[in-house]
Amino acid sequence: MSKIIQCIPNFSEGRRPEIIREIVKAIETGGAKVIDSSLDPDHNRSVITFIGDPEAIRAGVMAGVRKAVELIDMRTHTGAHPRIGAVDVIPLVPISDVTMQECVELSRELGKWIADELKIPVYFYENSASNDHRKNLANVRKGGYESLTKGKLEGNRAPDAGPNVVHPTAGAAVIGARGPLIAFNVNLCSADFTLAKKIAAKIRKMRNEGREMAGVKALAVNLSSRGIVQVSTNITEPDKTTMFDVYDFVRAQAAEAGVEVENSELIGVVRADALIRSAAESMQLIDFDEKRILDNWLE
Amino acid sequence: MSKIIQCIPNFSEGRRPEIIREIVKAIETGGAKVIDSSLDPDHNRSVITFIGDPEAIRAGVMAGVRKAVELIDMRTHTGAHPRIGAVDVIPLVPISDVTMQECVELSRELGKWIADELKIPVYFYENSASNDHRKNLANVRKGGYESLTKGKLEGNRAPDAGPNVVHPTAGAAVIGARGPLIAFNVNLCSADFTLAKKIAAKIRKMRNEGREMAGVKALAVNLSSRGIVQVSTNITEPDKTTMFDVYDFVRAQAAEAGVEVENSELIGVVRADALIRSAAESMQLIDFDEKRILDNWLE
Repeated sequence: MSKIIQCIPNFSEGRRPEIIREIVKAIETGGAKVIDSSLDPDHNRSVITFIGDPEAIRAGVMAGVRKAVELIDMRTHTGAHPRIGAVDVIPLVPISDVTMQECVELSRELGKWIADELKIPVYFYENSASNDHRKNLANVRKGGYESLTKGKLEGNRAPDAGPNVVHPTAGAAVIGARGPLIAFNVNLCSADFTLAKKIAAKIRKMRNEGREMAGVKALAVNLSSRGIVQVSTNITEPDKTTMFDVYDFVRAQAAEAGVEVENSELIGVVRADALIRSAAESMQLIDFDEKRILDNWLE
Repeated sequence: MSKIIQCIPNFSEGRRPEIIREIVKAIETGGAKVIDSSLDPDHNRSVITFIGDPEAIRAGVMAGVRKAVELIDMRTHTGAHPRIGAVDVIPLVPISDVTMQECVELSRELGKWIADELKIPVYFYENSASNDHRKNLANVRKGGYESLTKGKLEGNRAPDAGPNVVHPTAGAAVIGARGPLIAFNVNLCSADFTLAKKIAAKIRKMRNEGREMAGVKALAVNLSSRGIVQVSTNITEPDKTTMFDVYDFVRAQAAEAGVEVENSELIGVVRADALIRSAAESMQLIDFDEKRILDNWLE
């Protein structure tokens, strides 16, 4: 087994594919393997997924961030998804033969590099957070880029590294190590943004009350270019809540309002195991375990 | 890649686990790997799944069949599933580095051995069939063991190998090479056998009319020990019809009669890929392909 880390940076550009191609090219120069890039024009955001050993991840993050800061200008950025910077958030996920602690250390090293080299205020989140409040990405991003431009970054807005004023074109950045999550969106056959917001709130309520939807983060997004709304989720405990659980919950909630699901989409990549458990869940399959999978018996 | 064949013999014994344990032990003596065995008391049938190279499969079939013929007596057998013998059917499936033709030849060789050595009438089916009518297992099994005991096996009942009278305790046997299939059953929260029969008939009708359910064989089974009924299916074209498609079709049909699905079950094993496509189907997942599966990127 070789050391493998997954990195899934989110860039605040989802309308100009040529910009994302340049960033992908920069990331690849360090030896990392880019396995997916998703652009969303409504979110006005891209998610690039790449994997590699710690050296390739270090080189890929540095080159990708440098290129993004060169090409993205937050002063003219608009989009449906909360964000605070050109390089909005950089999660590092241990995949094989790497500990969470190694990813935490790499994220802090890279965060300091971004702060020192590019003069961008940097916040650490999730397992790399300096306090409990910053563990949660939503807290760090609250108010978005615009709120950060209103003055000095002090008190609970003070960055963990870098200058205490926002970078004029690149904004601020968030970086940290976290466990795997599934970025999974359910699109409704409806333009009713209030309905999407109600469903996202219901998911959060169920989760907070410990009833269903364990580990699911949800928000409503208006996909105006497609004339529909979306319930956008992160499944952070895929062992407890499957993709089908989320799909089916949204489907049932929408059905109560007479609305059907148009389709669903995965951003980035997912482990085969998560899809397989989702399949079992969707069919109420009993007596099922990995021994039932023929592939596991073949060398 | 080494040559791997999968063999999934069905034995007419589902109530005495000790018998099946003996057969499993016999199969393993030849070097094959037994990866699953399912007993069903209502079907009064067991399905043993094993894999190995052609030599191990040859040895496993011979030893398993010899043991089953020694231990199972069809004269006292009753069960909800159609069957013609103690060793009811022996499918051989090419898995890796083996052609269908090699499996056909091995099935014919083994069929002749069963006929000559054990004096059992043998029919070849699927890709090994001697004529179109015998390709279909349901045709070969029609009337069951009882109908075979009524006289000489002549005309369209004449075996492809072996004596033209049924073996008194072992009945007859069917063997052949086929492509992979998924044995998938959906259990209803109901004892209404007529409903299960109606749903199974609807599946066959849709399939025959080329509308949905391509490649799905279906029959109704009364699970009297559990007080419920089952729609028992074989999905023979898993690329066209997923497990979820079948589950959801049965669910919708049962719902029209006010009946819910209790659960579903898989007999034997399935390829990971079939479960993954089922998962994608269940969630109307768009833009999905194998590149989205992280495991495929890791060596």
